[in-house]
Amino acid sequence: MKIDDLLEQPSEWLKGTGPQSEIVLSSRIRLARNLDHYPFSHWADKKQEEEVLEKVKKTFLTSPYLKGALFLKLGDLTSTDKQFLIERHLISREHAVNVDHKAVCMTPNEMISIMVNEEDHLRIQVLQSGFDLMEVWRVADTIDDSLSEHLTYAFSTNWGYLTCCPTNTGTGLRASVMLHLPALVMTKQINKVIQMITKLHLTARGFYGEGTQASGNLFQISNQVTLGHTEIEIIDNIERIIRQVIEYEQGARKTLMTQEKAELQDRIFRAYGTLKNAHIITSNETIDLISMVRLGVDMGLIKDLNRELLNELFIVTQPAHLQKLEGKTLSASQRDLKRATIIRGKLSKQ
Amino acid sequence: MKIDDLLEQPSEWLKGTGPQSEIVLSSRIRLARNLDHYPFSHWADKKQEEEVLEKVKKTFLTSPYLKGALFLKLGDLTSTDKQFLIERHLISREHAVNVDHKAVCMTPNEMISIMVNEEDHLRIQVLQSGFDLMEVWRVADTIDDSLSEHLTYAFSTNWGYLTCCPTNTGTGLRASVMLHLPALVMTKQINKVIQMITKLHLTARGFYGEGTQASGNLFQISNQVTLGHTEIEIIDNIERIIRQVIEYEQGARKTLMTQEKAELQDRIFRAYGTLKNAHIITSNETIDLISMVRLGVDMGLIKDLNRELLNELFIVTQPAHLQKLEGKTLSASQRDLKRATIIRGKLSKQ
Repeated sequence: MKIDDLLEQPSEWLKGTGPQSEIVLSSRIRLARNLDHYPFSHWADKKQEEEVLEKVKKTFLTSPYLKGALFLKLGDLTSTDKQFLIERHLISREHAVNVDHKAVCMTPNEMISIMVNEEDHLRIQVLQSGFDLMEVWRVADTIDDSLSEHLTYAFSTNWGYLTCCPTNTGTGLRASVMLHLPALVMTKQINKVIQMITKLHLTARGFYGEGTQASGNLFQISNQVTLGHTEIEIIDNIERIIRQVIEYEQGARKTLMTQEKAELQDRIFRAYGTLKNAHIITSNETIDLISMVRLGVDMGLIKDLNRELLNELFIVTQPAHLQKLEGKTLSASQRDLKRATIIRGKLSKQ
Repeated sequence: MKIDDLLEQPSEWLKGTGPQSEIVLSSRIRLARNLDHYPFSHWADKKQEEEVLEKVKKTFLTSPYLKGALFLKLGDLTSTDKQFLIERHLISREHAVNVDHKAVCMTPNEMISIMVNEEDHLRIQVLQSGFDLMEVWRVADTIDDSLSEHLTYAFSTNWGYLTCCPTNTGTGLRASVMLHLPALVMTKQINKVIQMITKLHLTARGFYGEGTQASGNLFQISNQVTLGHTEIEIIDNIERIIRQVIEYEQGARKTLMTQEKAELQDRIFRAYGTLKNAHIITSNETIDLISMVRLGVDMGLIKDLNRELLNELFIVTQPAHLQKLEGKTLSASQRDLKRATIIRGKLSKQ
């Protein structure tokens, strides 16, 4: 398997399948783990980092759960490839800078990816379409158990798993879901919902994680607390709150349909018309327009379009995807042209 | 013939025929005339105004040039009908207020319309699609001659035709053309062109004449000077300058096509996509979008659309036209819905 093979398939988080996938794009579990007897990545010297890398690589290659996985040293990748992995949510933005001794291991279906020498020695991620954190947790837990048979984790009986940043200490668990909440944004209820979430010790982040803005009405909601509760308690809590958010979004969609149907149709079809006709379009505008069109499809207002195509458009119009499709580096304005051409082409075939 | 019959045909100024009709929508000649021995409309008392009205009505009804014409007293019209006549450029906005003793006489093809008791006793208008002021002037001159056989005009051998406002005295002539100048607007040359026009003693006005804003990139250019030159000199002068403006617009269109083709296509097709998909749309937005789409048709970028349909859309989406089509008064937001429905319907049949 090569990195370019991924281009042929939708990103796992955009497969559009799984429970409640009309609101929840994906469920993700991330476990932070560090090897005992090695300093955290930021404090380790080159030799130590290299040792960690080699040690975990050997373990990965023999793991039954990582059969056929791709192991990539970040230093060997072009900047387009690194951006490509970020766009597919396989590595973090942070992982793509200062890449010495950094690596990522991912299964061919992109469900499992493990970052090596990011903030922690290991960041085990399991990502799946739709809303099922508990199932995703079970997969992550199994892999974690399997790896721990060969690796000794830094663990304290008092504190649990030790991590570089104390906010991850304990379970080392981050459970998050990517939600599409256009109706809560349009009815201006989103801030109230985010305030509620925050009070309940969850965080809402933008599209590409920490420090990024919400675009396309996508919100990534995750737990803040990793210490003092079991993994099951943490996941139970976030699942319960997310179910509430889903109900709010469904309620807001109903309100829009009954009280502002014309305005809603107007926004949705204008977005659709723009996507089908633009000759120059930025990535941000694309994401925002796709959000509106997705809402139109979800609500049955747009009938001649399926969600799979929208998901495909969403991912192939990202900057690195465009450049890999084109097979060369493109300037921002070249990308805006290419993006519009691809979108028009795919939508005109509908 | 009834006023409602006009709904069935495109407005004369939107027929889209005649010389250089891809830039010049219409040519118009207006003659201001007053009857001798009667005070100007603003100074006349009710009895005098009524006398003028009756006198000219008799003359109109016997004129061979006004055969089958519709003679309408403004006081008998609903406000929708008055607005309808304004939208078709058959009466001025000023003519539709304080309507006592005001009238309009128009031929069934809408080429000739004569306002009675506007600022002057008579405002004879001849309007024709395309660019041919001289031909339009010949028609106006013939009608004027014919009417003057039965009416004695206020005329001074020193000053020429006497008018209420001194800016019309002399020939009483206003020659004007309606130009579509999107490329001069997009290349930001329009202000320079208007400055040049002004230096050459012409005025550029908006869509509905004096005091209105340019919308839809439409500019009405007319002479300021009515005194000290013959009609032929005045028309020769404006025709010469307009030919220059047409060349500038053609040059700007070429520049856009060679230097900014993608941006141009983007604007044009986005406008087309919005028109085809909006569910709520104001009259102003419609005019602006139609302007872009018209440019796309004129430049051969949009191939599946003819200019006649665009002209039809332009006029039937005006507020009074919409209400006459619907057969009832509509609020602004009802009109915005109805307008979008009509546009989508007509464009989806393409």
